[in-house]
Amino acid sequence: MYPPITTPFLDDGRTLDIVGTKRNVERWMTTGLRGLVALGSNGESALVEESEADRFVETVRDAVPSERLLIVGTGRESTPATIDASRRAAARGADAVLVRTPSFFKPQMTEDAFLRHYAAVADASPVPVILYNFTALTGVTLSVSVVSRLSEHPNIVGMKESGGDAGFVSSLVNETAPGFQVLVGSAPTFFSSLLCGADGAIMALACVAPDECVSIYDLVRGGRIDDARLLQWRVTPLARLVTRRYGVPGLKAALGLLGYIGGPPRPPLLPAPPEAIDTLTAALATLRQPTSQVV
Amino acid sequence: MYPPITTPFLDDGRTLDIVGTKRNVERWMTTGLRGLVALGSNGESALVEESEADRFVETVRDAVPSERLLIVGTGRESTPATIDASRRAAARGADAVLVRTPSFFKPQMTEDAFLRHYAAVADASPVPVILYNFTALTGVTLSVSVVSRLSEHPNIVGMKESGGDAGFVSSLVNETAPGFQVLVGSAPTFFSSLLCGADGAIMALACVAPDECVSIYDLVRGGRIDDARLLQWRVTPLARLVTRRYGVPGLKAALGLLGYIGGPPRPPLLPAPPEAIDTLTAALATLRQPTSQVV
Amino acid sequence: MYPPITTPFLDDGRTLDIVGTKRNVERWMTTGLRGLVALGSNGESALVEESEADRFVETVRDAVPSERLLIVGTGRESTPATIDASRRAAARGADAVLVRTPSFFKPQMTEDAFLRHYAAVADASPVPVILYNFTALTGVTLSVSVVSRLSEHPNIVGMKESGGDAGFVSSLVNETAPGFQVLVGSAPTFFSSLLCGADGAIMALACVAPDECVSIYDLVRGGRIDDARLLQWRVTPLARLVTRRYGVPGLKAALGLLGYIGGPPRPPLLPAPPEAIDTLTAALATLRQPTSQVV
Amino acid sequence: MYPPITTPFLDDGRTLDIVGTKRNVERWMTTGLRGLVALGSNGESALVEESEADRFVETVRDAVPSERLLIVGTGRESTPATIDASRRAAARGADAVLVRTPSFFKPQMTEDAFLRHYAAVADASPVPVILYNFTALTGVTLSVSVVSRLSEHPNIVGMKESGGDAGFVSSLVNETAPGFQVLVGSAPTFFSSLLCGADGAIMALACVAPDECVSIYDLVRGGRIDDARLLQWRVTPLARLVTRRYGVPGLKAALGLLGYIGGPPRPPLLPAPPEAIDTLTAALATLRQPTSQVV
Repeated sequence: MYPPITTPFLDDGRTLDIVGTKRNVERWMTTGLRGLVALGSNGESALVEESEADRFVETVRDAVPSERLLIVGTGRESTPATIDASRRAAARGADAVLVRTPSFFKPQMTEDAFLRHYAAVADASPVPVILYNFTALTGVTLSVSVVSRLSEHPNIVGMKESGGDAGFVSSLVNETAPGFQVLVGSAPTFFSSLLCGADGAIMALACVAPDECVSIYDLVRGGRIDDARLLQWRVTPLARLVTRRYGVPGLKAALGLLGYIGGPPRPPLLPAPPEAIDTLTAALATLRQPTSQVV
Repeated sequence: MYPPITTPFLDDGRTLDIVGTKRNVERWMTTGLRGLVALGSNGESALVEESEADRFVETVRDAVPSERLLIVGTGRESTPATIDASRRAAARGADAVLVRTPSFFKPQMTEDAFLRHYAAVADASPVPVILYNFTALTGVTLSVSVVSRLSEHPNIVGMKESGGDAGFVSSLVNETAPGFQVLVGSAPTFFSSLLCGADGAIMALACVAPDECVSIYDLVRGGRIDDARLLQWRVTPLARLVTRRYGVPGLKAALGLLGYIGGPPRPPLLPAPPEAIDTLTAALATLRQPTSQVV
Repeated sequence: MYPPITTPFLDDGRTLDIVGTKRNVERWMTTGLRGLVALGSNGESALVEESEADRFVETVRDAVPSERLLIVGTGRESTPATIDASRRAAARGADAVLVRTPSFFKPQMTEDAFLRHYAAVADASPVPVILYNFTALTGVTLSVSVVSRLSEHPNIVGMKESGGDAGFVSSLVNETAPGFQVLVGSAPTFFSSLLCGADGAIMALACVAPDECVSIYDLVRGGRIDDARLLQWRVTPLARLVTRRYGVPGLKAALGLLGYIGGPPRPPLLPAPPEAIDTLTAALATLRQPTSQVV
Repeated sequence: MYPPITTPFLDDGRTLDIVGTKRNVERWMTTGLRGLVALGSNGESALVEESEADRFVETVRDAVPSERLLIVGTGRESTPATIDASRRAAARGADAVLVRTPSFFKPQMTEDAFLRHYAAVADASPVPVILYNFTALTGVTLSVSVVSRLSEHPNIVGMKESGGDAGFVSSLVNETAPGFQVLVGSAPTFFSSLLCGADGAIMALACVAPDECVSIYDLVRGGRIDDARLLQWRVTPLARLVTRRYGVPGLKAALGLLGYIGGPPRPPLLPAPPEAIDTLTAALATLRQPTSQVV
């Protein structure tokens, strides 16, 4: 269970908040999370400069104990830029890199193009590569057959699938090499994905409700299916708000409500509106009160 | 577990095959299925005349014992036609009617339009109504809030949801009135849907592999999650072929391979091509051989 | 230029308004329209029973002089039903039939399926067949190559294309047999479609602004391109309201505002809300006042 | 008429080809083109590093006479990065900047977000800004009302619209401030767009057939509508190949066939396959032979 952490900014989104970053990571490291993901989609990586990325990774690594995993998002549109970013992340202590599909030239993103891109990146990356498929944002998708072939590469160790399609997740689990890790990114379907064989998750909900996410995982692994389903139902409303409905600005606002450093998103993203903050406040309150009764 | 049975035709699709219909239904009634659905999407209801529909329902009812359920698809594009079809089905012995969303005028199919349509049908139908949402074919969808409100109607007892989105199924289960039955229509995600709280299924796979479908259901209900998942994985390849890949012509061809009366689809549907028949033959063979080892 | 006329109902949509039908048609026949289309999409054909359709065609034919064309929508989901409807329309005086693509089983509506469907209908129809492609409502589309092949059939004389893509219209014009008529259905792009070589139009705007539509056509044919463009711009706001924004209910409301018999749509369609009527009233008033200055 | 020029690379896409760039631009400047666009979508800007972009702009500016326009693509995902890129392009001689919509966080790209983004960029850019809407690649769209409001900004002078929807182009022309330039990007609908009031075009076809593109423009402006339509039809097959069908790799291959420096695309883009080169060769041959007979 890895939270895709946000990238805190000062000054209306212009400057990286190094102090806030450190504080957030230290707090997450007090929970049961196995590690975290820096500079994923929720980390506004698309809006961050390369020099900022380097500094952010250094800061996060300092705060993540070596026995926990630091995964860094290094997908870029070009293959050489992705390789370069992966090397730089590895040099700064990343344990693995999460590589989003390139997607600008959608019609040209054929199976062959993906196979060559990921093979080139995995050949060159000093640390293991995790594929990252986020069709809702990219408009392209990695097919099961492509993932199946890439799962044979010794330096490709897993995949994050952000959609919530249980059939697709099942196919990924079934048709990839033994040991290949399927991590899901859709919190509202986390429970059912685990039952379909997923190995874990990288999802925004884990930033704001890390203990609950870890509990769902543990309950399923322990065979307590009904308890897991109840807890999933409990977190689902919040899960929908921080991911689908309010995006990164909502996630940052929710973190702020919980005492983390949220901060403004970087433009063109706009801060969460007051209505979002009210809704998030209510959802967090609902989640908090009787959780203990469930688990 | 209800199979949405096909409508057998003679003569290149022009004439209803009454004898074949009867023979098929009698054979399905030797399995563990709780009942069946006549004139659903897989029953080519969109291609069947009203007079043929009446005769088909009479024939099927004769072959379905009174202790098993006969559900009849009666959704039409107009509200009055849907009411009329529901009354005629009830008069011929239907235990419930399955009412697909009207969808021709997509932009006008607002929440309000659906609420009024289903309330009018449920008020007028002599037998209980099951909502039917099949977005992939209709291009419209029933929202959770609409289903939630309709679930309060005393004559609306359940819903068939044909998509495989576990999050949507979970929401339906959670946000509808107690006792409201959520039935799923996507066989590749049947197992995960059950774990999300679905009550059962109406899916084409149950026409060709009724015992396996019933077994998945029983295994989940009995808490044998791992066995259920394995059996789901076993049937998934065939499930994809008969529904998504080859459509009704493929389902009819598969039935023919199993000794049921398949027969040609009605034009404009074309018979399954030889390549489909080869693929289906192989998938059926694979399914048959070692099933016993699994359960 | 053919208006796809509405089907007036009494009693909340339950009964055909024969008197109103006659009155509307007689009024349209006082304009410069070359004929009209009965029971197209805007005629709520999807909501009309076969017996009603027959009576409606008889009524309209009585009011359309023999030197003007009566085109009747006879597309049904099944091939035999489409043939039957075409024969019945021809027997009641239709000069041609407009045959919408079947679309219920979208994935099976291959090029081959369309070729066979239309060839069978055209072989059997006593009057010429016009293809009808309305992708926004049906979710399927006739490719240029299919239309090109069908345009060689001696009993297929044209096509109505409801989308507004100028490139697609150009291809249809260029790649079909000589004499094949390309009629467009999107009023906001009528002017540009004519310049791309379209032969005419079947569009809802012609129900409420027949003279303006005829004028755009005549201006383009007469080489007065700038005047035609200005008149197109003048009618575009209304064109968007009656088709895309408010659908058939809006078209019926606009007819009512102009003194035609509008009447309620048939459920599940809901009557146009007060806000739609206000907007339509304003658009009609804007159109009316200074039209004379333009042409 | 501005061609969106390609960015030539050496060494399998890794190194900018400065000599080739210069040679291409000098040749384009012998035609009737009014200027050109560097680092647009067809310039693989998504795959080019910032330092390369700077060097490319310098090279192109050297070869474009000061009386012709150099427009540079400077859209980035973040607002600050877009401002920075625009300033750097202006400092290197760009006459205007073409700013693609940010699109990574699609659901958050609201009207308000676009208004603020473009206002911030236009406030800061030393040279005029041209909006750039390419929905097929980005999955987001600038609404007419947003463009209308932005067209009032003194430093926003026009828009490139890459879709081929004549109705949308008409609305842009009609509902923007006087003098606002609407440039289209879809070559197959160039002729009809001009008739709808578009002011010009930025389209890949102008890289490979600059004289024909200029001729269509001149014929329409001179009132020779029928000749313009014929010439449009002549270039349409090639237009479809270089843009929609084969993408940037196809455009580069076509340039190579014409004696320009094409070169490989940068990975993950793959070079055009042999089949594409054959098809392009045939289309270029067809275009070349009898063009003179047309105009």
